[in-house]
Amino acid sequence: MVSESMIIKKVKAAKAAAEKMVTVDSAQKNTLLRRMSRALKKNAEYLIQENRKDIAFAEKQGYSSALIDRLRLNDARIKAMAECLNETAALDDPVGEQIASFKRPNGLLIKKVRVPIGVIGIIYESRPNVTSDCIGLCIKSGNAVVLKGGKEASFSNKAIFLVLREEILSSKLPAGCIQLMPSTDRESVGFLLKQDKYVDMIIPRGGEGLIRFVSQNSTIPVIKHYKGICHTYVSDKADLSMAASICFNAKVQRPGVCNAMETMLVHSKIADRFLPEMIKQFQEAGVEIRGCMRTRKIVKKGVKRALAKDWDEEYLDLVLSVKVVDSLQEAVDHINTHGSHHSDAIITRDKREAEVFLQSVDSSSVYVNASTRFTDGYQFGFGAEIGISTDKLHARGPMGLRELTTYKYIIYGNGQIRQ
Amino acid sequence: MVSESMIIKKVKAAKAAAEKMVTVDSAQKNTLLRRMSRALKKNAEYLIQENRKDIAFAEKQGYSSALIDRLRLNDARIKAMAECLNETAALDDPVGEQIASFKRPNGLLIKKVRVPIGVIGIIYESRPNVTSDCIGLCIKSGNAVVLKGGKEASFSNKAIFLVLREEILSSKLPAGCIQLMPSTDRESVGFLLKQDKYVDMIIPRGGEGLIRFVSQNSTIPVIKHYKGICHTYVSDKADLSMAASICFNAKVQRPGVCNAMETMLVHSKIADRFLPEMIKQFQEAGVEIRGCMRTRKIVKKGVKRALAKDWDEEYLDLVLSVKVVDSLQEAVDHINTHGSHHSDAIITRDKREAEVFLQSVDSSSVYVNASTRFTDGYQFGFGAEIGISTDKLHARGPMGLRELTTYKYIIYGNGQIRQ
Repeated sequence: MVSESMIIKKVKAAKAAAEKMVTVDSAQKNTLLRRMSRALKKNAEYLIQENRKDIAFAEKQGYSSALIDRLRLNDARIKAMAECLNETAALDDPVGEQIASFKRPNGLLIKKVRVPIGVIGIIYESRPNVTSDCIGLCIKSGNAVVLKGGKEASFSNKAIFLVLREEILSSKLPAGCIQLMPSTDRESVGFLLKQDKYVDMIIPRGGEGLIRFVSQNSTIPVIKHYKGICHTYVSDKADLSMAASICFNAKVQRPGVCNAMETMLVHSKIADRFLPEMIKQFQEAGVEIRGCMRTRKIVKKGVKRALAKDWDEEYLDLVLSVKVVDSLQEAVDHINTHGSHHSDAIITRDKREAEVFLQSVDSSSVYVNASTRFTDGYQFGFGAEIGISTDKLHARGPMGLRELTTYKYIIYGNGQIRQ
Repeated sequence: MVSESMIIKKVKAAKAAAEKMVTVDSAQKNTLLRRMSRALKKNAEYLIQENRKDIAFAEKQGYSSALIDRLRLNDARIKAMAECLNETAALDDPVGEQIASFKRPNGLLIKKVRVPIGVIGIIYESRPNVTSDCIGLCIKSGNAVVLKGGKEASFSNKAIFLVLREEILSSKLPAGCIQLMPSTDRESVGFLLKQDKYVDMIIPRGGEGLIRFVSQNSTIPVIKHYKGICHTYVSDKADLSMAASICFNAKVQRPGVCNAMETMLVHSKIADRFLPEMIKQFQEAGVEIRGCMRTRKIVKKGVKRALAKDWDEEYLDLVLSVKVVDSLQEAVDHINTHGSHHSDAIITRDKREAEVFLQSVDSSSVYVNASTRFTDGYQFGFGAEIGISTDKLHARGPMGLRELTTYKYIIYGNGQIRQ
């Protein structure tokens, strides 16, 4: 176990840096991010060389080829990381934004202004680009960041960190504003999660097990980027050719991401007309269908029986659950019970029905007549995102720079006292 | 220990009600709140009779007179509770408010709208009025509420709950939208705090011990209403007579509340001129002064020596810590280290200095030339408040109706699929 005193030292240094970060202006932050971007490209060879050590270890351990692919750095990926830093530099700085301003009858002028949160802890797994992406987003939003990456990426993460840290040391920003925890055991992570005196927010990015561990052990507020069990409900009032196009896109275009569709709900009135052709199209694209009893009555060929647990499953793969429902309400209830409050869509031409769906489905992003695949910081126009929150408090849905800030009230008086 | 199945039953009922609450309109909610208000007044005799049981028990247990006073219900207090419900009815409904709306190049129309959070758990101590105040605020903001009051107020809380529940049963709102947990042991509270599947947010209102227990044991996000260690810094550039008036008000006007001043910081350049008269005025009002070494050199009479722990103390009483500092930076560092991020003020005529203070002090409400006593929902113009958050995420400072909501994105398309 990493020594507790070392963890304390790092989070204290981050806190001290965070107090200075509030006075750093946008120009300084942007200049730094652009220099960091260039530094990544300049040091590509070194980064790839360090990354090879992680890859070699992973191969020796017999890790899956999917994991090894996520780990791998190459010129194109380093270029993409550098690009992300430049894009972050180009985004509007949320810090200092005036959210509201009002004058009270006693003359007090109250302003609600956007400020950095302070120290943000990111706990993540395999992908090394998360290191530079998060450093960029946290610096731009005026926060200090404490990074704890996966053991399997430790050489890569450290190399990226050192390259970026060099640039901070030759800037006017406080040196402690980025901190890298050694990749290590859960016990040390558990200790980090109790440092609510120094760390203001924790974002775990990774599998369900990691997120569960973090939220059960943290005394620091956690913003969870949980699984996406996304639904599309095809109403009996849908344009069925639009429905087919959207459902196909939501499932097939990129099945391994959180905003892909996992369950398709179809109204019983149009199921006979809609399902045969739709399922055929899915099957031709290699999608395995797991259907309810009624689905299997309509399409007899190649539809597996959906088990109870399938409705709660995030496949992240070319697999789809299909269920026939008798009403809008049944669809809404199914989504609110089995969904993950991420992204859900209705396909309908009926405006009233659409409004009921939009109001009743308790998810961060609710669509009418569009693919759930659009839940994404870039697609929403926020630019680079730190993730997609499935929580309800503080930040919900795509989290960009603004979601990495909080607010405070500043109040101007001229001697007011309370009566 | 209360049976776990009973707790599960109540939180499940609250969740089911919350799903219906999103479609209840403002008029229905307001009508209900006004009927609840009348019901409290009509049932005053019954409420006072039940309250007597709590008072008798408290007296038998030898509870402090301050606690017994907090417990007591009388006509005036019941009228105030009824008034609070009417005031809440009169406030603007935050639900449905459009926070932002934007169209993307692909034609998607994205709206960010305010929605209820869902199920809010309130864990509180002695004051019975919290029961009706919180029910009013949660209903108006479209949430279901699970209440867990103090054991010492159990007869009073139950009586208030039953009177208000009668009104819900004869309204169109879902019956389960208010739930009262039996007042009981911490074990049951611990179990309640793990029901993140059904409860969306927990607000503990009470002493430090309660808040610590809740935040260490909850898997549900917690908004803390922590102590207020508020500071006033009297700069060398202050109008000293304004400083004296504000400091006196911040300490003496109502010392037992969280936005009262606990520590006064004074610049060394004006300490000789400012402190003798100021401390004399405090002492005449019965304020005990605990000063640093330099304060005690300037005022020799009746100033106790401040111990290290005094800088971290919330006195909630006629006691004041006083410290002489040599710079704005020293004042800011002291506040960020020893304060509770609640409310802090600078008294100065120098605008640049004021801006540095406003930017650098990491508190929910930062004042220039006014008393910290103004941090309050009514004073800010928000109306009734559920408390004052000392957290940074989701809600900071006075929490009114808007802070009891979250948002979601609703997206209107006409067939868009992701490329």
